[in-house]
Amino acid sequence: MKIIVDAMGGDNAPMAPVEAAVRAVKELDVEIVLVGKKEVVEKELSAYDYPNDKISIANADEVITNHEEPAKAVRSKKNASVVVAANMLKKGEGDAMLSMGNTGALLASGLLIVGRIKGILRPALATLLPSAKGPKMLIDAGANTNCKPENLVQFGIMGSIYMKNVLGIESPTVGLMSNGEEEGKGDELTKETFPLLKKAPINFIGNIEGRDVMEGTADVITCDGFVGNVILKTVEGMGHVVSTKVKNIFMKNLFTKLGAIFVMGGLNEFKQSMDYREYGGAPLLGTKRPVIKGHGSSDGKAVFSAIRQAKKFVETNLIEEIVNNINCMEEKSND
Amino acid sequence: MKIIVDAMGGDNAPMAPVEAAVRAVKELDVEIVLVGKKEVVEKELSAYDYPNDKISIANADEVITNHEEPAKAVRSKKNASVVVAANMLKKGEGDAMLSMGNTGALLASGLLIVGRIKGILRPALATLLPSAKGPKMLIDAGANTNCKPENLVQFGIMGSIYMKNVLGIESPTVGLMSNGEEEGKGDELTKETFPLLKKAPINFIGNIEGRDVMEGTADVITCDGFVGNVILKTVEGMGHVVSTKVKNIFMKNLFTKLGAIFVMGGLNEFKQSMDYREYGGAPLLGTKRPVIKGHGSSDGKAVFSAIRQAKKFVETNLIEEIVNNINCMEEKSND
Repeated sequence: MKIIVDAMGGDNAPMAPVEAAVRAVKELDVEIVLVGKKEVVEKELSAYDYPNDKISIANADEVITNHEEPAKAVRSKKNASVVVAANMLKKGEGDAMLSMGNTGALLASGLLIVGRIKGILRPALATLLPSAKGPKMLIDAGANTNCKPENLVQFGIMGSIYMKNVLGIESPTVGLMSNGEEEGKGDELTKETFPLLKKAPINFIGNIEGRDVMEGTADVITCDGFVGNVILKTVEGMGHVVSTKVKNIFMKNLFTKLGAIFVMGGLNEFKQSMDYREYGGAPLLGTKRPVIKGHGSSDGKAVFSAIRQAKKFVETNLIEEIVNNINCMEEKSND
Repeated sequence: MKIIVDAMGGDNAPMAPVEAAVRAVKELDVEIVLVGKKEVVEKELSAYDYPNDKISIANADEVITNHEEPAKAVRSKKNASVVVAANMLKKGEGDAMLSMGNTGALLASGLLIVGRIKGILRPALATLLPSAKGPKMLIDAGANTNCKPENLVQFGIMGSIYMKNVLGIESPTVGLMSNGEEEGKGDELTKETFPLLKKAPINFIGNIEGRDVMEGTADVITCDGFVGNVILKTVEGMGHVVSTKVKNIFMKNLFTKLGAIFVMGGLNEFKQSMDYREYGGAPLLGTKRPVIKGHGSSDGKAVFSAIRQAKKFVETNLIEEIVNNINCMEEKSND
């Protein structure tokens, strides 16, 4: 299996992607193609010992930064690392692709170059969030700002297949994010979505609320990309503020540092269970081949997790199963 | 000043409202009218010593529970405590009202009985949320599921006046909740709202994201009630999960309990800064007279905070200022 990794994307590129690639070829039984400026990637790689036949470099002279308009950049920068990677994936020169760079550019590359699965109206970004009951999926986490009921139904089905295949959950529960639990609650979008989800071939448990995100009430949370983005960033921001505050409390003086020693183990365990780096990246579900978004601030460990996740994505025939399940969906593609 | 308190609403009624009423008449220089089943409230009150002329009881035989359809219940149950309270407020038999009961019923009572300020299209529920930079206002936190751009502009203006008058912030910053910071980001609603907020008589700082909620980037966060409800409950749920986990870590064994002793002060201080009970209730902004929603799980301390807040709401002539500011608004009421 060959994973295509955008070596230029993310805050810690090319260090983190290169470090992760080296670890991956040693531990995961995969080959890696690093896509980026050849001399830059070569130089970074030269610091490591690794099986040379397992890592190759595909040159890409340009980079799409976080400040560029994604779709426009993908169309105009034919030599951008993410564009080169997507074209390789499309041609079958790799089994999955991963980028830590500009989210919009990766989404546009997935949509415009890799392409949608026939019948899928909109691919969606699916993020694993920590909860009191383990990782849960938020879909769509930001790919589609304006959605129709049929989109949310497909998100629920794709998320359900992902949680079953990749996380091994037998019959994943799917909740519809709303502003109240009762069936009548919601905005126009969720009210129209509710009866469609009821008929979908999934374990639909009805409306859920914001508090259910961290409680882990549903294995899959389906919502439009605007609401999903707000939830994801609210949780990330709160995690950041709380962990900074707690750290400051423990670092205050000698006594508090002493106190820290006694609870360090438990706190670290908790911190780890809340650490996005353990969960790998966010798959873009609904494209013809596996596309995965790594967190922009990923370090080597996080990129490695995302590569491991990409491998599992391929191994578990996720896309085949999504294709098969589309036939069960009532709402067909408009194209 | 006389505050009308729904003695039957909330998880801890009538104990919490009665306890808070007794404390309020002693400490806050206010009079309280407790609205509820006379014999129940009288019995609860009989356990306390207090200046008898400062607390009165208004009988209301019915209660609207959390499971009832709000608008319908408000129309049909003329003797429900929240309906009686709203009618008293309308007639001027008190200066503000407070309820910890069914949120929808309070909103409906505010809208249908107390009435909107002329020119305000939709009153909004305004909640104070803890942040790294102190309490910030989320408006609308759940009163209006489907909003128009003009609603969000009015929410921003009303929130701004509240933060200035009640919290004493000179020129409160107002942020528009979106899925990206750039001006072009957002769904249809926020994209149309952005230029209107730019022209509004407020300190508008542009789009903000979910992570800005806890970072405290803006003093006022304006959004529709669906998104606001999701944010509010996500934050509440996460706070609950994190504090439970941290508590378990400290209670694990003798050593961890020993560790807790050293950091207890700091942790309690932090917990207090994140405690909704310190912030009182959520004002419904845009009604002709002050209506305040207390948290359903409020204890006596939280109800007391909400009464103190109601007093400040009245003292600072908030409603007068909202009325005056409506003249500055370009978008007028449709009625």
